[in-house]
Amino acid sequence: MEYRIEKDTMGEVKVPANKLWGAQTERSRNNFKIGTPASMPLEVVYGFAYLKKAAAFTNAELGVLNNEKRDLIAQVCDEILDGKHDDQFPLVIWQTGSGTQSNMNVNEVVANRAHQIAGKVIGEGEKTIQPNDDVNKSQSSNDTFPTGMHIAAYKKIVENTIPGVIKLRNTLNDKAQEFKDVVKIGRTHLMDATPLTLGQEFSGYVSQLDHGLKALENTLPHLSELALGGTAVGTGLNTPKGYDVLVAKYIAKFTNLPFETADNKFEALAAHDAIVESHGALKQLAVSLNKIANDIRMMASGPRSGIGEIIIPANEPGSSIMPGKVNPTQCEALTMVCAQVMGNDVAITVGGTQGHYELNVFKPMMAANILQSAQLIGDACVSFEEHCAAGIQPNHDVIKELLNNSLMLVTALNTKIGYYKAAEIANTAHKNGTTLKTEAVNLGYVTAEEYDEWVKPENMVGGLK
Amino acid sequence: MEYRIEKDTMGEVKVPANKLWGAQTERSRNNFKIGTPASMPLEVVYGFAYLKKAAAFTNAELGVLNNEKRDLIAQVCDEILDGKHDDQFPLVIWQTGSGTQSNMNVNEVVANRAHQIAGKVIGEGEKTIQPNDDVNKSQSSNDTFPTGMHIAAYKKIVENTIPGVIKLRNTLNDKAQEFKDVVKIGRTHLMDATPLTLGQEFSGYVSQLDHGLKALENTLPHLSELALGGTAVGTGLNTPKGYDVLVAKYIAKFTNLPFETADNKFEALAAHDAIVESHGALKQLAVSLNKIANDIRMMASGPRSGIGEIIIPANEPGSSIMPGKVNPTQCEALTMVCAQVMGNDVAITVGGTQGHYELNVFKPMMAANILQSAQLIGDACVSFEEHCAAGIQPNHDVIKELLNNSLMLVTALNTKIGYYKAAEIANTAHKNGTTLKTEAVNLGYVTAEEYDEWVKPENMVGGLK
Amino acid sequence: MEYRIEKDTMGEVKVPANKLWGAQTERSRNNFKIGTPASMPLEVVYGFAYLKKAAAFTNAELGVLNNEKRDLIAQVCDEILDGKHDDQFPLVIWQTGSGTQSNMNVNEVVANRAHQIAGKVIGEGEKTIQPNDDVNKSQSSNDTFPTGMHIAAYKKIVENTIPGVIKLRNTLNDKAQEFKDVVKIGRTHLMDATPLTLGQEFSGYVSQLDHGLKALENTLPHLSELALGGTAVGTGLNTPKGYDVLVAKYIAKFTNLPFETADNKFEALAAHDAIVESHGALKQLAVSLNKIANDIRMMASGPRSGIGEIIIPANEPGSSIMPGKVNPTQCEALTMVCAQVMGNDVAITVGGTQGHYELNVFKPMMAANILQSAQLIGDACVSFEEHCAAGIQPNHDVIKELLNNSLMLVTALNTKIGYYKAAEIANTAHKNGTTLKTEAVNLGYVTAEEYDEWVKPENMVGGLK
Amino acid sequence: MEYRIEKDTMGEVKVPANKLWGAQTERSRNNFKIGTPASMPLEVVYGFAYLKKAAAFTNAELGVLNNEKRDLIAQVCDEILDGKHDDQFPLVIWQTGSGTQSNMNVNEVVANRAHQIAGKVIGEGEKTIQPNDDVNKSQSSNDTFPTGMHIAAYKKIVENTIPGVIKLRNTLNDKAQEFKDVVKIGRTHLMDATPLTLGQEFSGYVSQLDHGLKALENTLPHLSELALGGTAVGTGLNTPKGYDVLVAKYIAKFTNLPFETADNKFEALAAHDAIVESHGALKQLAVSLNKIANDIRMMASGPRSGIGEIIIPANEPGSSIMPGKVNPTQCEALTMVCAQVMGNDVAITVGGTQGHYELNVFKPMMAANILQSAQLIGDACVSFEEHCAAGIQPNHDVIKELLNNSLMLVTALNTKIGYYKAAEIANTAHKNGTTLKTEAVNLGYVTAEEYDEWVKPENMVGGLK
Repeated sequence: MEYRIEKDTMGEVKVPANKLWGAQTERSRNNFKIGTPASMPLEVVYGFAYLKKAAAFTNAELGVLNNEKRDLIAQVCDEILDGKHDDQFPLVIWQTGSGTQSNMNVNEVVANRAHQIAGKVIGEGEKTIQPNDDVNKSQSSNDTFPTGMHIAAYKKIVENTIPGVIKLRNTLNDKAQEFKDVVKIGRTHLMDATPLTLGQEFSGYVSQLDHGLKALENTLPHLSELALGGTAVGTGLNTPKGYDVLVAKYIAKFTNLPFETADNKFEALAAHDAIVESHGALKQLAVSLNKIANDIRMMASGPRSGIGEIIIPANEPGSSIMPGKVNPTQCEALTMVCAQVMGNDVAITVGGTQGHYELNVFKPMMAANILQSAQLIGDACVSFEEHCAAGIQPNHDVIKELLNNSLMLVTALNTKIGYYKAAEIANTAHKNGTTLKTEAVNLGYVTAEEYDEWVKPENMVGGLK
Repeated sequence: MEYRIEKDTMGEVKVPANKLWGAQTERSRNNFKIGTPASMPLEVVYGFAYLKKAAAFTNAELGVLNNEKRDLIAQVCDEILDGKHDDQFPLVIWQTGSGTQSNMNVNEVVANRAHQIAGKVIGEGEKTIQPNDDVNKSQSSNDTFPTGMHIAAYKKIVENTIPGVIKLRNTLNDKAQEFKDVVKIGRTHLMDATPLTLGQEFSGYVSQLDHGLKALENTLPHLSELALGGTAVGTGLNTPKGYDVLVAKYIAKFTNLPFETADNKFEALAAHDAIVESHGALKQLAVSLNKIANDIRMMASGPRSGIGEIIIPANEPGSSIMPGKVNPTQCEALTMVCAQVMGNDVAITVGGTQGHYELNVFKPMMAANILQSAQLIGDACVSFEEHCAAGIQPNHDVIKELLNNSLMLVTALNTKIGYYKAAEIANTAHKNGTTLKTEAVNLGYVTAEEYDEWVKPENMVGGLK
Repeated sequence: MEYRIEKDTMGEVKVPANKLWGAQTERSRNNFKIGTPASMPLEVVYGFAYLKKAAAFTNAELGVLNNEKRDLIAQVCDEILDGKHDDQFPLVIWQTGSGTQSNMNVNEVVANRAHQIAGKVIGEGEKTIQPNDDVNKSQSSNDTFPTGMHIAAYKKIVENTIPGVIKLRNTLNDKAQEFKDVVKIGRTHLMDATPLTLGQEFSGYVSQLDHGLKALENTLPHLSELALGGTAVGTGLNTPKGYDVLVAKYIAKFTNLPFETADNKFEALAAHDAIVESHGALKQLAVSLNKIANDIRMMASGPRSGIGEIIIPANEPGSSIMPGKVNPTQCEALTMVCAQVMGNDVAITVGGTQGHYELNVFKPMMAANILQSAQLIGDACVSFEEHCAAGIQPNHDVIKELLNNSLMLVTALNTKIGYYKAAEIANTAHKNGTTLKTEAVNLGYVTAEEYDEWVKPENMVGGLK
Repeated sequence: MEYRIEKDTMGEVKVPANKLWGAQTERSRNNFKIGTPASMPLEVVYGFAYLKKAAAFTNAELGVLNNEKRDLIAQVCDEILDGKHDDQFPLVIWQTGSGTQSNMNVNEVVANRAHQIAGKVIGEGEKTIQPNDDVNKSQSSNDTFPTGMHIAAYKKIVENTIPGVIKLRNTLNDKAQEFKDVVKIGRTHLMDATPLTLGQEFSGYVSQLDHGLKALENTLPHLSELALGGTAVGTGLNTPKGYDVLVAKYIAKFTNLPFETADNKFEALAAHDAIVESHGALKQLAVSLNKIANDIRMMASGPRSGIGEIIIPANEPGSSIMPGKVNPTQCEALTMVCAQVMGNDVAITVGGTQGHYELNVFKPMMAANILQSAQLIGDACVSFEEHCAAGIQPNHDVIKELLNNSLMLVTALNTKIGYYKAAEIANTAHKNGTTLKTEAVNLGYVTAEEYDEWVKPENMVGGLK
């Protein structure tokens, strides 16, 4: 491989000749060979691109950067956002906990690429744009990384998680309407209980997701607060007056999202409770989704020896010889995602507790985890909706059979023949393995006609939603 | 011990003669000898007392219970709420996951005590009040336990957690004001950085708690939704029309808290995402409090070989021979509480995922964990405020010495003598173990007077809050 | 209440006159009003009693304590171990993280009680035994608390957890033998699969518990290492030569358990990886038990609309009107315990990470969590064994019906009539909702006699254990 | 892109013409668009390659596969293990929870590649090797995936984790020896305490890692148990006699690791407690490493306003203007890894609890998490060792100054001048901010010579290791 020489304050470093990054990126690459290369999420890099561009505009507007530099920086940032330089960010999550090296990676790439755009050769001549003095002007790693992290997480949540959950929620709601007259046996403690409709069951899922979406939305204001302008320790040293408010406005404009400058920059650098908070809501959604997916796979179990009340789409060959063996693979993918999100929540919690003095140094780990969780929930909801939820159909025969076999229906007779006779009917049917109707008639307490008139499960499902 | 005989549908049970509970409670006591006896939190019992009274009023108003019974039930509930029967609830958390047995425990105690109030002897004569038919009328374990759990958790949060956190928040805010001119060295990566004020540091803590309180308050609407009226599976079978809305109103009235009937009773029985949600916010507060307590104990470390920038109150003898060894014991208690809350969050998360069909059966465990977390955070904040935060004082000598020794102040010279000379000063001071001023003057770059005029840390702490 | 005056180096404190504790205990009681009073587990107090007695014997043997004092200390320790002073330990978990105050509580109680035994009145005359100089001789809180914690945890695990798990394991093993010929349908992905025996299923549970017990036993050597002799920072300052080894021998003798002095006292004070390790094994058992309890409640579900392959004991009234509704309450208690243990594992993990320099200050929290987990698992296994596992019976009718209805049995025909014809039979039966035999005969591929001879599920359960 | 048509039992699928995979892989790719593509760890694929080769040899030896097919299968497996087909495994973790689709991916790639090796064109002519009948012979997804997962995890632990931890352990041990005479102040509760040597501190770290390695090794026997031979539900249906034992021998031979067939195949499919167990030990190592890294960064803090007792290597530019600002970046990377491992432990725990009946369907998630943790710990230890631990040097000046300034040294005078005079000296020095020696002489209790002779910290560090 060919190399060129890049320098920083510690001296010279050999960098692959065809790469845009500089000395500090290369040092990090060599010093942190931990896990998969380039594991730092690209979403964070894009978050940086937004903020570097916003900083350039703000610096120019406040008179500390000229317009030529502003435009060059902005042009490279746009290229990065277009995905043209995805292979220029080779660093890992497991680097310095402030993410300094990823900040420098962006600074170096912007500066070197700007040099190219200016018609020059990287490593030759004076730098058109300085990585530290120009690209990083009025910034510090300590305020840029949390800003990039908030931008990335916010975008991921509103562009991926929330639409995915809503898509699933709407389909489940459609099913709740579609199944509103499908009366079935209820189950508590996994045991037979009084009836409800399949629609009512699905309405519970919808309500869970509605509450989860509300909880997630409640966390967005905190996540919309940006650290940028705090610089090294939160005091805003070396920023022009008005910088923090203005740079947040530019970021809001470029991302089209309601970002604002954080009221308190000391918190914004030293603690990442906003990440803890938003991920807490993601974890809550995982809890809900796990319940939903579990119910659906249990209700779809069979085809002969399970519950079998619903039929889910067959997307892959189950058993080659076994017809009807439709494995609930989407439920499995979704519940694995839920387990992962629960684990990620602990990683983020642990990282969140460990800010020391003016800086929390678990930033890249926290960023990576919230991005993974937000992506997985969004994707898994879409996948589950498309390949499972949308195709769910009641197995009316099974539902009816289980309902009519149920001994719990006897409660409908209480008001007609009294509690004790009703219980005697149920007991006898349980002992003999027969139906309520058979024993009710055999015992002489009701006629077959009375039974059919009085024992109507559809009258037992209440007026509640 | 003397016993009396109580009966249920399974037959006779011997119950201690001096106890108010009945057969089902006694069975549970014998069948679930797991962990500490009587571990079911009394707060849950009190939650039941509120709801049983509310149900009695609602049933009476809707014409399905007479006023005599209503008043007897209400009277016993009031006695329970006065703490007169605390020793009548011997059951453990680790019972049936629906909490049925604790519901029955309350039903039995209310019925037997009402019998006493009516001037009769327990176990003799017809029951004045039936535990199932009267006390439990229009109810099921499945909707009462989550209702009692929500009442208990909501009350604990608003009566204990929030006031405790606010008390600490206010004291930290007072300190932030009090210390607003105490300029000190900042630290990032635990390493010396540019200065800020001690007040700014504390303002970050205040901001964390403000965000945490907001997050906790955001969860209260979900927690205010009550399952009562859903009965066995959420359909409201066996409740009079209008019961669910009215009973929530009575509960709101009796507790003076804004409880409402849950829009969707199927969710309210089968999932406890509201508990997951509120506990997520408690966990976030734990994350914040851990950061704050950690910072304070590090800043108070010493007296000679630590940081020593602040002085915390001496509440207990530290070392008998070692003056000034003031152990940060309140920080330690608080961070242990935080670790516990983080653990409880996982227990609640795991319980929350496991609802099956119409019922989640991890109710008592979830209730116990959220009550413990809410109590511990509230208590620990009060303890920490009273015995630590309120007495924090800056150690001005140390703060000044560390600040003036710092090499980071050299950045103030950048604009006067240029970056490279400034760096040379710092380098030389670092190598020689001297001060910036010494070397600045020695190198002939500034006079002593210039140094004192130009290097003013108080000018480096910015205009940001 | 009457009080007496006690003193420590900070001055006078009023202590309830009828209590044996002294000034430092009383200060802690006042300064740490966090959570339930007296929450410090008594098991830790008993651990202290063992070690104080052992220290007295060691000190006497090594010539630094006279025999009269030794015997007085030992006598009080024995009284404590007999449970005679359980109400003399009022402190909470949420105190100083070194547990210093609980160490002093024990020292004070021993000294004051010894004074009584010596025929004197507490608070009058010179102390017969000094809490610090005598009871705490050659010790520090920093080495006593971890020693007491290890003693308590080790005892709880070998006296409660392991016997409880073994009791359940043996019953499950008996069931595995008892059910070894009960052929039933297997289920993968919750869907019908090829058959196995109910005994084989149970043998999997036994194997899980055997592995779990082995894992737990693997952790005991680390837990048997005692910190005592390290004193304040691990160097053993102020201990006579040979003290650490000898005191561990006395503890081993008094507890009849294989305790040894820790090879490295610095680890033993500053980290509690032994607690992390043993609790990790408890968590593994919780994982196994959760799987087992879940399977059993699913297999017992019904009576009509669930799986219903096994019958579990009816211990409490389920539904008053619904015969056969035997709720799996023991499974529910056990799985709630499992969730709690998973949460406790995180609390312990977080505490374990936070040792600073020479001391970990999450000791009481870690002790309380491991003791709770060890107790709950032991108790819950016993309860589950007695009230559920021991009474499990196959529901042969259901098992047979589900097995014979299964379409998976068609694989037995592959070698007789070829894969494609076999699949056609299964497909037709699935489509028509009929049995394999019906369609096999209808399609003319086999006779009824051939079918019965060839399709024998008992030949499909293999020779593997 | 060009496509070819592949078929499975559900019909035709278009597959990219240049790929070796078949219909089922392609279906999975389309049905599970969740998270990063191709996230299924290659280590699992390699685990499959070992087991497919071993199965081929076993099948051949037991007479159910001819030698030509055996050799073709083995040849492709070797190519996979050589990394020649890494881009042929496009599936994600978040697929079916049994990993069936990854099993089929391997089967399809082996079959198609074998067809190529046999000189034919994929998709043309009869398949030389059938993916199901030949490559998957005597196997099921249900036993192959856990087998591949165990092979992958075991290899990763012994080839990456353990060597990495040992490398760091050995360097820390070297440092413990090197620093054995460097007497320094001890700290408990972060507060000054009696002295110890820097070597003693490091010996505690070594002891933690030794215990952690032992704990990890204790888990390997369980992890060495292979499910292969259990086929679909653990009964071994469709395997030739002796298959399970022999195939494990072949795997042991090919991997050169001590794999054995699991005693109980029902556990091996339905539960993954071995993964839970091994990951528990990884989590314990994370706890230890977190403590170590935390201590080192605190001791290295400064350069002026921190503790500054040790100097760590400067690997990257810290502050461009601030000499001596050597950020503890390796500590930060390592502690972020520890937080991730703690989170992964919860994900694995949750997955481990959820086996249902004969199959646990959280396999891919559990595999991915243990592989990530094992890799990260190994890599991070190596990185930390190379770029931090190996270069740690004591800052003798600071250590000496802090030691000599300490007031705790006064305890050395107790035996010379009595406790009370000693305490008076310390108190006076604390009040005046002077040294013990100054006040000891001023107060006239000792001469300067006596002080120097009697107060020797090196005599206070004990004889314990």
